[in-house]
Amino acid sequence: MKTLKVPEATITRLSVYSRFLEQLDRRGIVTVSSGEIAKGVGAGPAQVRKDLAYFGEFGTRGVGYNVKDLMRYTLKILGIDESWPLVLVGAGNLGFALCNYKGFNERGFSVVGVFDNDINKIGKKILDLEVYPLENMREVIARHNVKIGIIAVPSDAAQEVAGLMVKNGLQAILNYAPVAINVPESIEIRNVDMSVKLEILTFNLGKKDL
Amino acid sequence: MKTLKVPEATITRLSVYSRFLEQLDRRGIVTVSSGEIAKGVGAGPAQVRKDLAYFGEFGTRGVGYNVKDLMRYTLKILGIDESWPLVLVGAGNLGFALCNYKGFNERGFSVVGVFDNDINKIGKKILDLEVYPLENMREVIARHNVKIGIIAVPSDAAQEVAGLMVKNGLQAILNYAPVAINVPESIEIRNVDMSVKLEILTFNLGKKDL
Repeated sequence: MKTLKVPEATITRLSVYSRFLEQLDRRGIVTVSSGEIAKGVGAGPAQVRKDLAYFGEFGTRGVGYNVKDLMRYTLKILGIDESWPLVLVGAGNLGFALCNYKGFNERGFSVVGVFDNDINKIGKKILDLEVYPLENMREVIARHNVKIGIIAVPSDAAQEVAGLMVKNGLQAILNYAPVAINVPESIEIRNVDMSVKLEILTFNLGKKDL
Repeated sequence: MKTLKVPEATITRLSVYSRFLEQLDRRGIVTVSSGEIAKGVGAGPAQVRKDLAYFGEFGTRGVGYNVKDLMRYTLKILGIDESWPLVLVGAGNLGFALCNYKGFNERGFSVVGVFDNDINKIGKKILDLEVYPLENMREVIARHNVKIGIIAVPSDAAQEVAGLMVKNGLQAILNYAPVAINVPESIEIRNVDMSVKLEILTFNLGKKDL
C-alpha cells in the first residue's frame, strides 16, 4: 500500500460514498449497486466503480455491494474507523460553529481543545470546553495525542497560528481562513474555501442564461 | 455553449485557479505558465491545461498565459464577473461566521438578508444587517433580485427552509447543514460538508502508518 497513488478527487468522493452507505445502512438496506450509489450521490456509475477499484475488488457481478461491508471498508480507508481528537484555534463565530458541527462528530472527529489569544474569549465555554490561551496548546495536544489542528482565525493571523501548530507537534492542518499558508512539506494541510461551491452554483445559473 | 458539459471537478479547480491568478495579479505578475499555476495550486500541469481547454484556446506556447486576461476570463466563466446578492437562513454561529466571511466578499458575493424563526435572534444585528423573521424573505428576495440562498440551520430544519426558499423564488441553494435535502430538479443545490477535507487529512495520515 505504500506506493498507493490515489487522486484526491477519489478520496473526496469516497468520503461522500461512505456517508451515503451509512444512510443506506441506517435504513436497513443490505445490498446496493454501483448505479444506485452513483444516483444517490450524483456521480456516474463508471466513476463509482473506478474509484472503488483503487482499493481492491468489491461487489459481486449482478448482485452489487454489501452495504455494511463496503461502508466499513470506506471508513477504514479514510482512516475514520477510529476517532480523531482535534484542536481548534479561533473562538469566534466560525470556531463556535465548528465545535457544534454535527458533521464532525458523525464522522469520528471531536474537538478536545479550543484556543484563542483574545483575553475576552479566554475562559468562555463552547459546549463543555473552556477557551484556553494559545500557551496551553502544547499540553492539550500531548495529553490527547492530537495530530490535527483546525485554523478558524482571521486571514491575517492564520500563518502565525499554523507555525505554532507545527511547533507544537501537529501533523495536519485544516485551514478555514481564506488565505494560503506555508508549512513544512512534512505537514499535511488543506484549505476549506467556503465559497467554491457558491461558484459552482453561479456557473450553473450562468449557463442557463446563455 | 448550451451543450457545454464541463465536469464539476473542473469548475471547482477553475475556482481555485482563479484565486491563484488574483494573487499573482495583485503581486504585479504579468504572465504565468500552466506549470506555475499547477505548482501554485497543487495540481498537475496537464490537468491545468485540460481544464482550461474546455473553455477555448488560451496562452501562447513557450510564453504562457497573460495573468490578467486569464483571471478575468475565469471570473467570467464562473459567473462572478458580476456581484451576487445572497440571502441566508439561520442566525446562529455558522450564520454569523458566513456573513463575516471575507472569502465571500472577495469573490463578489454579499449577504443582503438574514432570517431566522427564533424570536431571540430576530432583531439582532449581524454587521449592518438586522435578522428578520422568515416571513420577510420573499420581500427581500424580490427587492434585491436574489437567486441564491444559504442554509445555515440545524439539520432537522434544513428541508423546511429549503422548501420555503424554493417557494419564494430562489433558483439555487447552498446547504451547510450536514443532511441531504430534496428540491425540484430545476433548483441547483450543493451541500457543503465541512468534514470532507478532514477525511483527506486522515487518509493521508493513515497512509504514513502503513
